[in-house]
Amino acid sequence: NSNLKLFSLNSNPILAQEIAKVIGVELGKCSVSRFSDGEIQINIEESIRGCDVYVIQSTSAPVNEHLMELLIMIDALKRASAKTINIVMPYYGYARQDRKARSREPITAKLVANLLETAGASRVITLDLHAPQIQGFFDIPIDHLMGVPILADYFKEKQLDDIVIVSPDHGGVTRARKMADRLKAPIAIIDKRRPKPNVAEVMNIIGNVQGKTTILVDDIIDTAGTITLAANALAEHGAKEVYACCTHPVLSGPAIERIQNSKIKELVVTNTIAIPEEKKMNKIVELSVAPLIGEAIIRVHEEQSISALFD
Amino acid sequence: NSNLKLFSLNSNPILAQEIAKVIGVELGKCSVSRFSDGEIQINIEESIRGCDVYVIQSTSAPVNEHLMELLIMIDALKRASAKTINIVMPYYGYARQDRKARSREPITAKLVANLLETAGASRVITLDLHAPQIQGFFDIPIDHLMGVPILADYFKEKQLDDIVIVSPDHGGVTRARKMADRLKAPIAIIDKRRPKPNVAEVMNIIGNVQGKTTILVDDIIDTAGTITLAANALAEHGAKEVYACCTHPVLSGPAIERIQNSKIKELVVTNTIAIPEEKKMNKIVELSVAPLIGEAIIRVHEEQSISALFD
Ligand SMILES: Nc1ncnc2c1ncn2[C@@H]1O[C@H](COP(=O)(O)O)[C@@H](O)[C@H]1O
Ligand SMILES: Nc1ncnc2c1ncn2[C@@H]1O[C@H](COP(=O)(O)O)[C@@H](O)[C@H]1O
Repeated sequence: NSNLKLFSLNSNPILAQEIAKVIGVELGKCSVSRFSDGEIQINIEESIRGCDVYVIQSTSAPVNEHLMELLIMIDALKRASAKTINIVMPYYGYARQDRKARSREPITAKLVANLLETAGASRVITLDLHAPQIQGFFDIPIDHLMGVPILADYFKEKQLDDIVIVSPDHGGVTRARKMADRLKAPIAIIDKRRPKPNVAEVMNIIGNVQGKTTILVDDIIDTAGTITLAANALAEHGAKEVYACCTHPVLSGPAIERIQNSKIKELVVTNTIAIPEEKKMNKIVELSVAPLIGEAIIRVHEEQSISALFD
Repeated sequence: NSNLKLFSLNSNPILAQEIAKVIGVELGKCSVSRFSDGEIQINIEESIRGCDVYVIQSTSAPVNEHLMELLIMIDALKRASAKTINIVMPYYGYARQDRKARSREPITAKLVANLLETAGASRVITLDLHAPQIQGFFDIPIDHLMGVPILADYFKEKQLDDIVIVSPDHGGVTRARKMADRLKAPIAIIDKRRPKPNVAEVMNIIGNVQGKTTILVDDIIDTAGTITLAANALAEHGAKEVYACCTHPVLSGPAIERIQNSKIKELVVTNTIAIPEEKKMNKIVELSVAPLIGEAIIRVHEEQSISALFD
């Protein structure tokens, strides 16, 4: 591992420390700060010439700051003669802007891919892209890891009885199916529809949740509107308990208040996005993706297949 | 001008309005806002298919927000079939990171050029780059306008007697020379040196300022350290009055306080960077670059030479 170097930028310093520990290396020395006018100043404080460099940075909020830190770091590494520049992006920001849903919209997820390649990235390692098609936005190798096994293992250890895995919308059924397979549980689907324009949505539930321990699963929880409405619908339909889980806890705007006031008993998330102190709450359980990412980095570095990590 | 479209992003809306008026067009309809999690949302609200589009945005503070707005806008315009995408960037952020001054530094000014081209820019119109070499960072046409004539004309109209144009450092002598030619005045240079390490700098002045009306000229005033020390040195060396001027009023950190407490009688700047309300002060005079930029856009659009603008 002598020419493997791991650097952390400002989005996930704690996760980066954990990953370094898993791999058994020290984090590389670099400072990422701001000039007086807010421009990013990066100093890499050790030689990385000829090294395989791994940079850990989620493009979580403030997304534009974190993305520019990453691009400027890649530029600095490239000019300092890194052999390869591997971007470890546990959370890929702008992933929801992945298509033109209306005329004259940008496709920012593709723009971000282009920017990373232009800056000089050799490879991207990421988790649970909002749409797996984003892999095709890159012309460099991309390793796509999954949070579902980590979330599923947590619930397995809890030894809950009579569980049903619930997708909060039709888009998430595949994910719920994967989770259900790991927990040998049936699935249910929240089927939202608006009977007429300007009439409140009706929350139907496809599948049986009466008296069950329900586990809602999603990739991203942002303002928590969808997930809390789903949780309350499950409770109304007679669910015994409602758990919720997701890989990426974006938790913006009214999210914390909504979760607090919802029927969700426990929200299980991973640390792809660092939750700021002021948003932490008793209901939230954080699981670390460091073992997964650390193992992926070791395998990539040793040129082994990482597909075994998915089983 | 039927297929010329002008859009403003969030950095300089007032300047953009002024430019639209000079050209005699309405600003294009678009909204540039934020999703709940801070991601940029852009909606272009009119067709721009086949048009020559000009986008006005300085990458002033918050630089990373303004730069990402610009890149995402370019992406949206490209996908909406704009014929050309012309970036009007009155202030080019990150211009001071234009070379590796130390090992393992990024060259962010070059990265920004690459990012703009990757996003899809066809041309850049800018003013007073910190280093004119940045023009060479682009492989697309770049029109480089100058603020000195605007600043010089202001002082000409004031009809001040016995003026000397002063460069605050050796790097700015060419700019001071240009200004002096327009005002038919002599120049002086502040010659800072540190006699020994850890000893205060000595401010020598090359040239005669005794009893003169002095005008300091620079491209950027950021924290205002250099310019206020220079102003005070001029006063100590017997200057009658000290004016200062620059193209780009970055004015970060302690700038306003330093200017307030300095010997500067009046600071003359242009509006390439919008000065926020809370930083406005009586000493600061703002001149508009709208006539210059408007004229440049018209000439570029009509495929006329813009070199006449420099005389
Ligand atoms: N950061 C964001 N927050 C909320 N909505 C977004 C965000 N980015 C994109 N969108 C919108 O979300 C929709 C795509 O989400 P989805 O249907 O879940 O793939 C599109 O209409 C986007 O305009
Ligand atoms: N935004 C900034 N604020 C202050 N200094 C900067 C900034 N960007 C770059 N620099 C530094 O300014 C120096 C270049 O300035 P100059 O010598 O005037 O060309 C380099 O050492 C840069 O590291």
